[in-house]
Amino acid sequence: MESITELRVRYAETDQMGIVHHSNYVIWMELGRSDYLRMLGQSYSEWEALGIRLVVAGLELTYRGPSFYDELIQIRTTLKEATRRKIVFGYRVMRKDALLVEGESRHLVAGTDGKARTLPEELLAWVQKG
Amino acid sequence: MESITELRVRYAETDQMGIVHHSNYVIWMELGRSDYLRMLGQSYSEWEALGIRLVVAGLELTYRGPSFYDELIQIRTTLKEATRRKIVFGYRVMRKDALLVEGESRHLVAGTDGKARTLPEELLAWVQKG
Amino acid sequence: MESITELRVRYAETDQMGIVHHSNYVIWMELGRSDYLRMLGQSYSEWEALGIRLVVAGLELTYRGPSFYDELIQIRTTLKEATRRKIVFGYRVMRKDALLVEGESRHLVAGTDGKARTLPEELLAWVQKG
Amino acid sequence: MESITELRVRYAETDQMGIVHHSNYVIWMELGRSDYLRMLGQSYSEWEALGIRLVVAGLELTYRGPSFYDELIQIRTTLKEATRRKIVFGYRVMRKDALLVEGESRHLVAGTDGKARTLPEELLAWVQKG
Repeated sequence: MESITELRVRYAETDQMGIVHHSNYVIWMELGRSDYLRMLGQSYSEWEALGIRLVVAGLELTYRGPSFYDELIQIRTTLKEATRRKIVFGYRVMRKDALLVEGESRHLVAGTDGKARTLPEELLAWVQKG
Repeated sequence: MESITELRVRYAETDQMGIVHHSNYVIWMELGRSDYLRMLGQSYSEWEALGIRLVVAGLELTYRGPSFYDELIQIRTTLKEATRRKIVFGYRVMRKDALLVEGESRHLVAGTDGKARTLPEELLAWVQKG
Repeated sequence: MESITELRVRYAETDQMGIVHHSNYVIWMELGRSDYLRMLGQSYSEWEALGIRLVVAGLELTYRGPSFYDELIQIRTTLKEATRRKIVFGYRVMRKDALLVEGESRHLVAGTDGKARTLPEELLAWVQKG
Repeated sequence: MESITELRVRYAETDQMGIVHHSNYVIWMELGRSDYLRMLGQSYSEWEALGIRLVVAGLELTYRGPSFYDELIQIRTTLKEATRRKIVFGYRVMRKDALLVEGESRHLVAGTDGKARTLPEELLAWVQKG
């Protein structure tokens, strides 16, 4: 299963090299996993309301090509791993069929205090159904 | 009285026009008022610890010239008005003697719930001493 | 005439007050005017390809209420003034019928060198048809 | 050799979790490598003036702990690898002795057109002296 997030590149996301600044893909990946959860029928804001946080523990990005102002971009998000303590998402940032950036984000399950906790069984089952 | 904030322009702050994107001056003004309060001997994080928020109610910026990557920039901040309900800061963003941007921000005093409240007398006296 | 830009609030756009950081409305206004030009049948990237830049000369924002993570927001953009040297856009940022932020941006027409120039008659007529 | 970049956390860099949003470390790493080059006696803006770009090809970050508004943070940057085609920087983001984030960025040498080129021998020797 894969969620697809579409966005149009913002002017503020470009830099003086004339391309999207590389930090923005990290933000786009976050939009991707937010839409992945929404596609499953729940939003991350509902998780937060339940007192659950997904704390970012690691990021990896490989940049294959630039993107430009005003382009339509797709973020394709998949679930790579989910346990009660850890969730890993994978991302492909595309311009139509061209792969621009590949990435992965690793998250630890935490409470509102930022301390580690375990994901309730029903939420784990729900996220794994993807 | 005036506080001076020095910063070096970040690459990520530029846009494809080759200049600093205009939204960053709003963030720089925030650095300016943060340093203004610190110059008076307290930081805005201490205000937040006291349960006081300065909610942004209005902004005005006039752009006179661009700034560029890697430049040293000064934000000169003054207090224009302070009452128990409202605080107004003024800003001049400078490259040495060249005025790049002039701005003003208006703030309402609020509690942690975002609702209006009044500034304690001692905090008002303290901010007015500037 | 009015263009409508819809967006969903990004997590990265929030701050520790739990609301959208006020600087993001400046970026959203830019999305608004970009869509305004697109609604007229041309995009700002086409203007840039013609060697024309709209340099930001001034901003005014009045904040009436906060917006929150994951909300759907509308930016309603209008043209307030257009001459061969200057263009002024107006903005209303809304959550459904609730007005959150009102704003205005003033722009000067410039060439790729950042120097003032005049807008070609046909482009002026085109932008005024809005 | 190691360069040290000091910064104070900006309010705009926090998110509604009450900590610095994870995307900002990517921007801080960029400040780190910019200062690394400056420590060697040249700035990246001089490289750009010579027609040389360091295109970001990859990023890795491991997050070990959060940082907060108004804190003083250090970015410790080292050169991990430098050839005529590729440069790798390593980063440690610290609060005093506490390691918050470790990271690495991989860069390809390119010209102003974004196409791959080789670093001039004298620039390579210069960056390797670090």
